[in-house]
Amino acid sequence: MVAGGALVAGGALVAGGALAGGATIAATRAEGTGERTAGTGTTPVASVGALVEPFHGARQAGVTTEPQAHAAFVALTVRPGTDRAALGRMLRLLSDDAARLTQGQPALADTEAELGLLPARLTVTFGFGPGLYRAAGVDDRRPASVTDLPAFRVDRLQPAWTGGDLLLQICADDAITVAHAQRVLLKDSRPFATVRWVQQGFRRSPGVEPGGHTQRNLFGQLDGTANPRPGAPLDSAVWVPDGPGWLRDSSTLVVRRISMNLETWDLLGRTDRELAVGRRLDTGAPLTGTAEHDEPDFAATDAHGLTVIPDFSHLTRAHVTDDRLKILRRPYNYDGVPTADGDADAGLIFTSYQADIARQFLPIQRRLADRDLLNEWTTPIGSAVFAIPPGCQPGGWVGEQVLG
Amino acid sequence: MVAGGALVAGGALVAGGALAGGATIAATRAEGTGERTAGTGTTPVASVGALVEPFHGARQAGVTTEPQAHAAFVALTVRPGTDRAALGRMLRLLSDDAARLTQGQPALADTEAELGLLPARLTVTFGFGPGLYRAAGVDDRRPASVTDLPAFRVDRLQPAWTGGDLLLQICADDAITVAHAQRVLLKDSRPFATVRWVQQGFRRSPGVEPGGHTQRNLFGQLDGTANPRPGAPLDSAVWVPDGPGWLRDSSTLVVRRISMNLETWDLLGRTDRELAVGRRLDTGAPLTGTAEHDEPDFAATDAHGLTVIPDFSHLTRAHVTDDRLKILRRPYNYDGVPTADGDADAGLIFTSYQADIARQFLPIQRRLADRDLLNEWTTPIGSAVFAIPPGCQPGGWVGEQVLG
Repeated sequence: MVAGGALVAGGALVAGGALAGGATIAATRAEGTGERTAGTGTTPVASVGALVEPFHGARQAGVTTEPQAHAAFVALTVRPGTDRAALGRMLRLLSDDAARLTQGQPALADTEAELGLLPARLTVTFGFGPGLYRAAGVDDRRPASVTDLPAFRVDRLQPAWTGGDLLLQICADDAITVAHAQRVLLKDSRPFATVRWVQQGFRRSPGVEPGGHTQRNLFGQLDGTANPRPGAPLDSAVWVPDGPGWLRDSSTLVVRRISMNLETWDLLGRTDRELAVGRRLDTGAPLTGTAEHDEPDFAATDAHGLTVIPDFSHLTRAHVTDDRLKILRRPYNYDGVPTADGDADAGLIFTSYQADIARQFLPIQRRLADRDLLNEWTTPIGSAVFAIPPGCQPGGWVGEQVLG
Repeated sequence: MVAGGALVAGGALVAGGALAGGATIAATRAEGTGERTAGTGTTPVASVGALVEPFHGARQAGVTTEPQAHAAFVALTVRPGTDRAALGRMLRLLSDDAARLTQGQPALADTEAELGLLPARLTVTFGFGPGLYRAAGVDDRRPASVTDLPAFRVDRLQPAWTGGDLLLQICADDAITVAHAQRVLLKDSRPFATVRWVQQGFRRSPGVEPGGHTQRNLFGQLDGTANPRPGAPLDSAVWVPDGPGWLRDSSTLVVRRISMNLETWDLLGRTDRELAVGRRLDTGAPLTGTAEHDEPDFAATDAHGLTVIPDFSHLTRAHVTDDRLKILRRPYNYDGVPTADGDADAGLIFTSYQADIARQFLPIQRRLADRDLLNEWTTPIGSAVFAIPPGCQPGGWVGEQVLG
């Protein structure tokens, strides 16, 4: 369903024909047959658990990979005195264990080996923050756009969710698999780095919605509709096509923690919400269309001569037509512990992947910060930027072109 | 797979035949066909998402229900002055919205209606703490064993995880569904109660392991092997068979937050771990057996004359042979944010369901607190007890026999 040879769980699940008919979801009761067609005896039968994403390749997995249900974003701070050679040792160790775990094998020194056997499409993606290049003395290999973002007037950034020298983005369709991989990789990292922040997020579980479906965030909106289409448009938006070895097939990542104020959002009527977003809440269609992926018509006006899609809407401010200027959003929801009065601590781990942050992400972000009505209900409370270095082949390690 | 007419997702998923062969899981690559057999046009195809557990019935759902992948345990404190009539109104409101949401319908005043359409086996189970009976002035209807537990020497209980007047146990195979249901029910509760604590936990995602499979905790152990077998043994352990209307078909619940010290556990060799547990780590078999559900032989000795299963093992201390004295464990893992040094904040949301806490849970807990080697690596940091009142029929509400 996406480039890179991913074995997508959604298709396999739905192929089982669990739905008895095409009635509305709410009224449908699927009949589980209880039969199993493969795997007998003591070997546990598993379908979703056994699905594997490739680790090795020219480009890292976990970027254009069909998003998995669970993610941990782990940002590390390099310990003082950790130099280029030490960082190379760390990344060799991390790459080796990541390669094993993603393929359903325990890590080399895995103390909970049984938790390493069900990869559930596990991917581990490495991101390099500006501090890693400085620590290694290879700032000349840092993609120019991987630098602190300018301050935006809407930002209320908290140090606890901001920055980071090395990012481990751990995604799988199973939360136990993510927890185990995180544990293994943090033990590997200990001699070299400390934990700066960890953000845990979720999307729909495997099989709940078909693969390729746009997810809903906790405002109830479809989120990520405007992503570049798979294939050439996606590739041209996300990956650097040429340049020296440390740059070709690399990407960049912006991680923003966006607090979403459900209390005030819930006071808003449906019409006002749809005007703020510029899309229908049910289908995700632009207010001038009928289906999610219809092109918005920003010139269309209503009987009063007003544009149907308001200028202040999120859709208008974020809209990009040139594929090479689009960003790939791959967001995860978070839902922390509510206050005593029941106010939610909910929001979005917003991620934007693009070949160049300055050329693609920043213009969109400036337009949104300037005048996006959604800012009334959302607050960026964390921000970090990373290069996504090229992938590696078997025997190699992620970062070898940068640190080797 | 369990009593109560549950439509179990595991069977439906595995019936799709996603596994190409019976090879070991680690080496298997399943081929997703990408085909969908039902649902065309704009209606999203869903299988796991559409599965429904019954809400109405003589007994509440969410107890003997095959455990779902995600859970939120929400403990509320009744606001001062909330009397029996007000509690009745709260529970009528909560029951009504829970009934809708579990059947894939938005709540009555649902502001994110689109998030209410995929129940994914959602259950909402209500638990009544001692404080609720006091507030309502119906202490004579409180099951006698639903009272503060005695202090155990291993306890390091934190107020932030302890007690509670009303428990909302929200379980589903999808984390977005859980988040949405929690949000709806907390908004319903606001006039009547404040949030005391929320514990979020996870098990394997749907389809990762077959239904009925014992889950592994983050120590890598199979956890829950000794549960009573489905059918009459399970029913006799969990449900009160007779008595007045507020008691018949009720149960009780102990929720304990158990911190698990992965740092010291990981220093232990496999043999020592297996002696501490009394079972093999890979199969979960007792040290005297070969399969998970083999009966342990506590008299068996080795060449040195020592018992094969040590007296201090968790298996020995927790073992119960009489079905009516067993407890139903339905644990969820938790994994919080690690420290800067990478120490995990991991553990178990231990839950024990039984007809009578004093008769079933307490003797086991006393033996464990007295001399279970696992205590070296585990610490109870939260504890709460609740009655699980009987279920209700359509038009009724949970708690009507207690508060009506």
